[in-house]
Amino acid sequence: MSDVRARYALGHATINQALGRFADRHLLQVAEPVGEAIRYSLLGEGKRMRGLLVLSAYHAAGGTGDAAELAAAIEVVHAYSLVHDDLPCMDDDDMRRGRPTVHRVFGIAAATAAGLAMVPLAALCAAEAARSLALDDATIGAIVGELMQASGAGGMIGGQLLDLHGEGRPLGLSELEQIHRAKTGALIMAAATIGGRAAGASATRLQALAQYGAAVGLAFQIADDVLDVTATTDQLGKTAGRDLALRKSTYPALLGVDGAKTRAAALILEGCRALDEVGLLTPAMEGIARLTVERTS
Amino acid sequence: MSDVRARYALGHATINQALGRFADRHLLQVAEPVGEAIRYSLLGEGKRMRGLLVLSAYHAAGGTGDAAELAAAIEVVHAYSLVHDDLPCMDDDDMRRGRPTVHRVFGIAAATAAGLAMVPLAALCAAEAARSLALDDATIGAIVGELMQASGAGGMIGGQLLDLHGEGRPLGLSELEQIHRAKTGALIMAAATIGGRAAGASATRLQALAQYGAAVGLAFQIADDVLDVTATTDQLGKTAGRDLALRKSTYPALLGVDGAKTRAAALILEGCRALDEVGLLTPAMEGIARLTVERTS
Repeated sequence: MSDVRARYALGHATINQALGRFADRHLLQVAEPVGEAIRYSLLGEGKRMRGLLVLSAYHAAGGTGDAAELAAAIEVVHAYSLVHDDLPCMDDDDMRRGRPTVHRVFGIAAATAAGLAMVPLAALCAAEAARSLALDDATIGAIVGELMQASGAGGMIGGQLLDLHGEGRPLGLSELEQIHRAKTGALIMAAATIGGRAAGASATRLQALAQYGAAVGLAFQIADDVLDVTATTDQLGKTAGRDLALRKSTYPALLGVDGAKTRAAALILEGCRALDEVGLLTPAMEGIARLTVERTS
Repeated sequence: MSDVRARYALGHATINQALGRFADRHLLQVAEPVGEAIRYSLLGEGKRMRGLLVLSAYHAAGGTGDAAELAAAIEVVHAYSLVHDDLPCMDDDDMRRGRPTVHRVFGIAAATAAGLAMVPLAALCAAEAARSLALDDATIGAIVGELMQASGAGGMIGGQLLDLHGEGRPLGLSELEQIHRAKTGALIMAAATIGGRAAGASATRLQALAQYGAAVGLAFQIADDVLDVTATTDQLGKTAGRDLALRKSTYPALLGVDGAKTRAAALILEGCRALDEVGLLTPAMEGIARLTVERTS
């Protein structure tokens, strides 16, 4: 596992560098404070789990280029979702990744605009990144399309609203899964398939990557819910216990902490099996799946 | 001019049909009320000026296909901007195009999410539309990229924030122009160049279309400011006199109503000249420029 961890550390660093290059390339001409707010959001500490998934899927499927910018483009969408999630009209959170949230630093209007602007920014960055990998234009189009699909009303943005609507009223397990498959799952699934697509993976392999992404994405959200109950604010770098405070339905509330952990573990197994069947279960892909549920923040 | 008006009427109808097809294709699986809110926003009455500009530029540059879906994709971005502009945290408006604004019907959270989701939706629709015109993948990528650029922090979204920041404090003419070149101008410019690009226009012609779009876009905003002072709420389909109520800096305030009209007319002339030099000044392109300033709503 230590080789894999070294690879993650390297991937993490190259993704951060790529995010810095995006900021330098695209934000210099953006009016302040929006440009600064986007930069702050992009360059904060993050696990870069979605980006690492792009890299790992790319390498698993035989890609040999530098996919760091492609990985970073997915992180732009993820960073956007955090900016908006933290807004007073959403989860109303003051801390994220150990720092004040974007709207606490730059104000609500700038944070809202910054988040908004990050969706088209991600589309531009993904297209540039795919071009830099010398992919053909049809694949570039498919990758940008997949990222936009995962970001849109049927994916993350739609999921955020469902999540908001769910606050303060009890949800059943299937309703909760529906929310999280859209809100968290769509982008994690896209990370896996976009990595594979950039490496020219076959339709069968893309299908397996999608299955893996969907399962790991849901496990990730379950782990998030568990951590909100079991971890401290210091460990999380964001306020712990928010779900209870917001009266959100969660997996631990529905299944108990142990039940939720069991469900997450089963999902990881399911995702890894799907990859194994098509020869894509590399140590890195298995490691990310495990980290998803074994993390402490 | 009556041939041109008949062509606009036809274009208007085909754009509306294309918007309806987008809604049918993309919104059925979107969670309510977001899907319904997007549909409401897309299918409201509108001048479709940006869409007509795509069509006219496409035909001026020799395009012979059906560019209605491409035109409609631009209107998706425009519709998004209206949804967010009307929100309480922005202009706080109750009426738009003669109907209650989206947040008045569906609530603030749904309106916010709907607007957010319309940017990636527009990217998907533009790519589909460009593909249906059998454009090569590089051109499709350039068109989607141009639309995202116009939508992003350097364009419309950045301009909206500048606009918000400008409320309640006096702006000089150059600052006001900077806001409007971003907020209104970027998308109108993109409409002109995207139409040209889809028809395979040369770099010189694209440059002229950009000049025309920038000039007409600014004239459009000046005319908007003038109408806010001179027209009634009934004529506008939205609340008149909002600029004064919001203490916004406007062209009539800085130049007087007549001075603003003179400036708009000069911009129209400038834009048309740029097109004339490269053989693109068709009656439709000239007509749209004139309508921009001669409209009553």
